Amino acid sequence: MPLSDQAYMARALELARKGLYSTHPNPRVGCVIVRDGQIVGEGWHAKAGEPHAEVHALRAAGNRARGATAYVTLEPCSHFGRTPPCANALIEAGVARVVAAMQDPNPQVAGQGLARLAEAGIEVACGVLESEARALNVGFIKRMVRGLPFVRVKLAMSLDGRTAMASGESQWITGPAARAAVQRLRAQSSVVISGADTVLADQARLTVRAEELGLNAELTALAIDRPPLRVLIDGRLRVPLDAPFFQAGRTLVATCAVASARQRYQEEGHELLAIPHAHGHVDLRKLLQELAGRGANEVLVEAGPKLAGAFARAGLVDEYQLFVAAKFLGSSARPLLDWPLARMAEAPQLKITDMRAVGDDWRITAVPVASA
Amino acid sequence: MPLSDQAYMARALELARKGLYSTHPNPRVGCVIVRDGQIVGEGWHAKAGEPHAEVHALRAAGNRARGATAYVTLEPCSHFGRTPPCANALIEAGVARVVAAMQDPNPQVAGQGLARLAEAGIEVACGVLESEARALNVGFIKRMVRGLPFVRVKLAMSLDGRTAMASGESQWITGPAARAAVQRLRAQSSVVISGADTVLADQARLTVRAEELGLNAELTALAIDRPPLRVLIDGRLRVPLDAPFFQAGRTLVATCAVASARQRYQEEGHELLAIPHAHGHVDLRKLLQELAGRGANEVLVEAGPKLAGAFARAGLVDEYQLFVAAKFLGSSARPLLDWPLARMAEAPQLKITDMRAVGDDWRITAVPVASA
Repeated sequence: MPLSDQAYMARALELARKGLYSTHPNPRVGCVIVRDGQIVGEGWHAKAGEPHAEVHALRAAGNRARGATAYVTLEPCSHFGRTPPCANALIEAGVARVVAAMQDPNPQVAGQGLARLAEAGIEVACGVLESEARALNVGFIKRMVRGLPFVRVKLAMSLDGRTAMASGESQWITGPAARAAVQRLRAQSSVVISGADTVLADQARLTVRAEELGLNAELTALAIDRPPLRVLIDGRLRVPLDAPFFQAGRTLVATCAVASARQRYQEEGHELLAIPHAHGHVDLRKLLQELAGRGANEVLVEAGPKLAGAFARAGLVDEYQLFVAAKFLGSSARPLLDWPLARMAEAPQLKITDMRAVGDDWRITAVPVASA
Repeated sequence: MPLSDQAYMARALELARKGLYSTHPNPRVGCVIVRDGQIVGEGWHAKAGEPHAEVHALRAAGNRARGATAYVTLEPCSHFGRTPPCANALIEAGVARVVAAMQDPNPQVAGQGLARLAEAGIEVACGVLESEARALNVGFIKRMVRGLPFVRVKLAMSLDGRTAMASGESQWITGPAARAAVQRLRAQSSVVISGADTVLADQARLTVRAEELGLNAELTALAIDRPPLRVLIDGRLRVPLDAPFFQAGRTLVATCAVASARQRYQEEGHELLAIPHAHGHVDLRKLLQELAGRGANEVLVEAGPKLAGAFARAGLVDEYQLFVAAKFLGSSARPLLDWPLARMAEAPQLKITDMRAVGDDWRITAVPVASA
């Protein structure tokens, strides 16, 4: 019995999710080809430079693609990039119908792939499970539409909203399940940003570690093959080049300092970028624009209350990932965000979109609500 | 078809829960009488002085109780209190079998009711859905076993763990659904405790308001008929007798001051109790013992960070009820609890036992984990 368009699209989304850790800067895309109620081909995009989802699915379907319906989680491309346009491939294969979950988010190309298919006599539909498809590529969509990456701020806190003792002691607030979830958040990001305080205090490297991901072998291999760029915000270049953060591989350092230090960082394999703002701080918005220009879809900020607070106060946060440990750190411990407010009316409103247990800890996803 | 013992006991617990807001100082108890797989009688205890659950159920069953099985959420009483012993009533009615969820928690009488039934030739069983039955009467059980009430601390906080702005501004952190849940927490408590700071700053009355309970007419009437005793901890007698808290009805004031003020409070219908501790504070443990002596099963603490923190630091809290609003109040706002800690090793460990949405807010239930 043939299933509904939604059911086949749900399967295409399931396939697309396999690319969660590896497609960036490309979007995650899945494709299912159905003929006479039978799935005759499936495909998903694994990484940039490799075939798109449609091509994998068409290959699997072979001749059975003729007269079939193709379900794609994103409008098929109509331009020559690193691979030929998928719209052409679908036309050549003789599919009769194409169902897309959403249009290409790039406003300058949106709809052109579907238009080309329609011109070739193919029946087209768009908007099936669109919100699910958009959720899978929030970063890619935001970069295409606004020229900025999607910014997640991850914080580990106690039940009373504290991130560390006054002394700075903060290691192991949350347990192994929460740390594995953070590893996966890193792995799905194009960029992980931290600050000098965190990197100095915790000797943090902010790398993705295969054995801590908790993923199967295929996804682990893909994730490790495509690690996020690690970015250090170090306005006054306080972190020494022999710190574990630098020793763990190539990094980008955003600073306010003049270019004189650049050579020294370059010699060690790192890039130094001067993006000064007022008061000796790095211009965070310009940094994000620069990262988007380099293809960053999702950015994960893993920093202390100061830097995380600076992103929050600048209105640059799209989503908070709060890992909550069931303990109290007490009233003299460090705050969640350095963000002093005087009146309740100034309190930023959020919407909690998810709350779930991770091991002994809890994970809260909250998004800022735009003030009216 | 006859159901399992668990199924009939589950129904008895459902009946017992109807007494949630009105049985104190008595426990909540439900009873189901089953003959030939048919429920022939149901009953629940509504309030002290009125018949126990077994008596209601036996009356409903009439002659059909002969040879039947009685399911009771608590071991039937064997002593003459305000009503004759239920064990006798069950024997006289000729029931063949009695299944209890748990024994009488009072260690000096535990098992005697069941023993009397067994002596009369009735088959007895105990321990069916025991943990559910215990959860329904945590306060009664703790009072019987340890001479202390079960203490819940309710706090309304922002996602960053703050209870008020630095100025004290704190009204309406959470929404109407959370406030209705707090009303029900008050209604199920024998005692609601607050402190002078809260009562002065918020003009708080801490009453149970019928229209805000969100309960049906029967339960609302029972709750309003049996409101909690309102207790004010006011070490230096700062709250004036014309404050809304005192105007809302009879209260108990716990203080450090000498007895000279007692007459003045008495004239206004209030009771003044001197329970001094060190440093001009009220002795919280002694206060709780005094309240248990007066039959308090569950105590709800609704106070600011200072008093709530004092209960926490003294190890007197059994359960936290945290109502979390999806907003940030910022790093200069007031803490959840006044409880400064220097090292992570001192951080009190909790277990989150429940987390659920209430309107736009979230409700977290957390219990302290005894350190090993």
